[in-house]
Amino acid sequence: MSGEQELGITESKNHNTGEWYAEVVQKAKLADYAPMGGFIVTRPRGYELWERLQNHLDGWFKETGARNAYFPVLIPESFLEREADIVEGFDPEVAWVTHGGYEELEERLAVRPTSESIITPFMSEWTRSHRDLPMRLNQWCSVIRWEATETKPFFRTKEFLWQEGHTAHATEDGALDEVMMRLGQYERLYEDVLAIPVLRGKKPEHDKFPGADMTTTVEALMPDGKSVQGGTSHALGQSFAEAYDVTYTDEDEEERTAWTTSWGLSWRALGALIMTHSDDQGLVLPPAVAPEQVVIVPIWQEDTKDDVLQYATEVAAELEEAGDVRVHLDDRDQRNPGFKFNEWELKGVPLRIEIGPNEVEDEVVTAVRRSDNQNTKRELDRTELVDEVDDQLDTVFDELYAKAAENLAENVRTATEPEEIMGTIGQHGGFVKTPWCGDEACEEVIKEKVAAEIAMLPLEDGEAPEAAVEGGEEVAVEGDECTMCGEDATEVAYFAKTY
Amino acid sequence: MSGEQELGITESKNHNTGEWYAEVVQKAKLADYAPMGGFIVTRPRGYELWERLQNHLDGWFKETGARNAYFPVLIPESFLEREADIVEGFDPEVAWVTHGGYEELEERLAVRPTSESIITPFMSEWTRSHRDLPMRLNQWCSVIRWEATETKPFFRTKEFLWQEGHTAHATEDGALDEVMMRLGQYERLYEDVLAIPVLRGKKPEHDKFPGADMTTTVEALMPDGKSVQGGTSHALGQSFAEAYDVTYTDEDEEERTAWTTSWGLSWRALGALIMTHSDDQGLVLPPAVAPEQVVIVPIWQEDTKDDVLQYATEVAAELEEAGDVRVHLDDRDQRNPGFKFNEWELKGVPLRIEIGPNEVEDEVVTAVRRSDNQNTKRELDRTELVDEVDDQLDTVFDELYAKAAENLAENVRTATEPEEIMGTIGQHGGFVKTPWCGDEACEEVIKEKVAAEIAMLPLEDGEAPEAAVEGGEEVAVEGDECTMCGEDATEVAYFAKTY
Ligand SMILES: [Zn+2]
Ligand SMILES: [Zn+2]
Repeated sequence: MSGEQELGITESKNHNTGEWYAEVVQKAKLADYAPMGGFIVTRPRGYELWERLQNHLDGWFKETGARNAYFPVLIPESFLEREADIVEGFDPEVAWVTHGGYEELEERLAVRPTSESIITPFMSEWTRSHRDLPMRLNQWCSVIRWEATETKPFFRTKEFLWQEGHTAHATEDGALDEVMMRLGQYERLYEDVLAIPVLRGKKPEHDKFPGADMTTTVEALMPDGKSVQGGTSHALGQSFAEAYDVTYTDEDEEERTAWTTSWGLSWRALGALIMTHSDDQGLVLPPAVAPEQVVIVPIWQEDTKDDVLQYATEVAAELEEAGDVRVHLDDRDQRNPGFKFNEWELKGVPLRIEIGPNEVEDEVVTAVRRSDNQNTKRELDRTELVDEVDDQLDTVFDELYAKAAENLAENVRTATEPEEIMGTIGQHGGFVKTPWCGDEACEEVIKEKVAAEIAMLPLEDGEAPEAAVEGGEEVAVEGDECTMCGEDATEVAYFAKTY
Repeated sequence: MSGEQELGITESKNHNTGEWYAEVVQKAKLADYAPMGGFIVTRPRGYELWERLQNHLDGWFKETGARNAYFPVLIPESFLEREADIVEGFDPEVAWVTHGGYEELEERLAVRPTSESIITPFMSEWTRSHRDLPMRLNQWCSVIRWEATETKPFFRTKEFLWQEGHTAHATEDGALDEVMMRLGQYERLYEDVLAIPVLRGKKPEHDKFPGADMTTTVEALMPDGKSVQGGTSHALGQSFAEAYDVTYTDEDEEERTAWTTSWGLSWRALGALIMTHSDDQGLVLPPAVAPEQVVIVPIWQEDTKDDVLQYATEVAAELEEAGDVRVHLDDRDQRNPGFKFNEWELKGVPLRIEIGPNEVEDEVVTAVRRSDNQNTKRELDRTELVDEVDDQLDTVFDELYAKAAENLAENVRTATEPEEIMGTIGQHGGFVKTPWCGDEACEEVIKEKVAAEIAMLPLEDGEAPEAAVEGGEEVAVEGDECTMCGEDATEVAYFAKTY
């Protein structure tokens, strides 16, 4: 059993995306499969990605009035049943606790599939006056949805980590603003932190969150042509507030019913991150989430070892202290530089710095960006090291984003015949936009043939997603006919295969 | 329904500790009772305490080699059964998932009561060589233990939040060092952050973690004379490594079995925090965990309002920016200063600053420490405000710590007759130390009579807890007889009523 052979990725991203993805996840030590189908173990390198993502999002949530809380992991069946859509939507996938110790419980308890049905009743208790609104709660937790599908780490698991935000507002406008603000924060996470451009849209009526007025989504297009629902933000209207009795006394002393929202982003974002940027050498990470942003690999002979290591140590210290960069100096004796290069490439470190006797003499370092397909070696001047490294890290982000944006821009196409939708998706994947009447049956036609569905609809009132203009031809709805049935079109639908 | 009356604490800490505690928790908006007995909802002000506690502990864990991970919330029954002591110890209190959706599961899944039985098998997979050791994992999560007791927020709940650390080591010494290092970090959390002095000890044989060689504990004495087990760190010997096959190839190419540890601290620390410092006016918090460290209450008349508010705003900004202090300026129009004083006292803000026209004119502020029973008003000079406020916050910590330390020092007593143990605990509570033969039956004698048990035994080899010398008379074990049965004593036992 050779450690070196084991280390490398053997599958091809282009030809065998699924197997390649699974291999990257395991060999970069992000996650392992648990013994129970549908469950995974998130290893420290994977969990650290989640922590960095959390730190960004949690900071934005707190700046915009959301406060973290923690509600029970178990929810009585009768609570789920109080909102008819929730029970209908989630009942088939609930894991049920029926026994505590040796006793059978009087009432079954659901392992939370989502927490509207336990959080909204408390919002009811805590809301008396209009002054208590808006009320904005968030929790970071795990949820379980018992779906019997193949396990795909971070994309398809029965248990997953997420955050779920829940808010109550005095007015519908307040609730809608909240929905769009949170969607904007998800977009910011993908675009500014994970280097993944996304499209903002809403889900068709039949694909909304159970009980919601509107479900909005950010969709990310993966390199294999499938769309990932990257995060969703729901306008829940008054159905939950009515079911769980969230009312408040308004300024005019009238009792009114609140408007609620919920919004969630799961570790599926890590799946999108891994899938989007990584390559046949392994993981590729944007600097903001990378556990190590820079790895220094010293290259020495017996007689140059001391000088090289001393110089490398100084460089590491300078970057850490003056540059506030996360640096790892790989000074292992028992591994050669080539082995180290491969290992850190596999682990996705954004910038590799090589230091040998020449670098010491010339007072420079040699840098290679993980995002640079040419592996170009660049000399960085020691005297401007902190700035140079900052620039290189920025360039890593820019290169990753540009490549993903190019993939998106090239893969939004237009179709006006059913065969064209199916042909285009079959051949290229990506998004195909087309006029649609709003009838689920017309989506089914496409779904049955090429397993593609409506990933999203552009948002109304000026909230149109960028790609509606950027990619493909413009699609006019007004006066147009549904591509599938010929009835009047009411929407532009973005069809895609989805994760 | 008067808001003002509702706000205040009506129970007395001295006379009705249990009811008083429950009232403080609810009125300071830390937690509420969930509809299912044994479960609570942690509200934002309570969760923020947990987050600050987490930040401290998590930072220390990471500095000392532990890395966060996430393992499934559900554990197959067969995994629990692989370690005999674990299944015996936890089986009576496991919540079982038996159904996924509409299907009955082939094997029952435990909602994690603790994670040795799912983490250790993965340590086995990840450990090949001595170079993989020590392996140090930690996870922040919730666990469920189905005990049928009265709910007491943070102290007694079926579900609780905690961290559980799990490590594997090549040698027994390595494992024991780890156990003591983590216990030291728990001690540091209590003493340096929460302002609660603790005693370090170990649990008697019959009260160890199931399967452990040794369970160490930090014990905190509450004002009502009961001891709280504040955090435990377990030397698991090789029993878990053997059961789950954690072996490694040593430098000499021999296959050896690892030594493992686990260590956990739960939100019970919040219970101890609330119980220790708070008073009949409500919550009292040490500055390190307080959501607001300083509250500014402006006091104005119509004609002074602008000046007072402007000055107060400047003071708030200066403290926030130059002092890095968490400040809240309570400029609500509809509440008078007295109401605000009461509300922020109830919420435990460490320092209140009052600003009226006189303060503006004299370029001072008036400060009142929450920890000062006399409510002394102090003038702080505006020109040295940041330093002065820092000093006052330090003094809050010192006052809280001193009071708790005094309670502990006064309540460690010695007894050499069974009636003396029972009499002392009945009259004063606190710890009573006495020679003990090591036999559980001798503990039972005391337990049956006054519901006190052995909270801890001083640690051997110089790791003696401070109070063994600080409080009460010294107890010699050598040559002494067990107070209960007269056989040779082998330990000094600290009896106490416990939470
Ligand atoms: Zn149609
Ligand atoms: Zn005895």
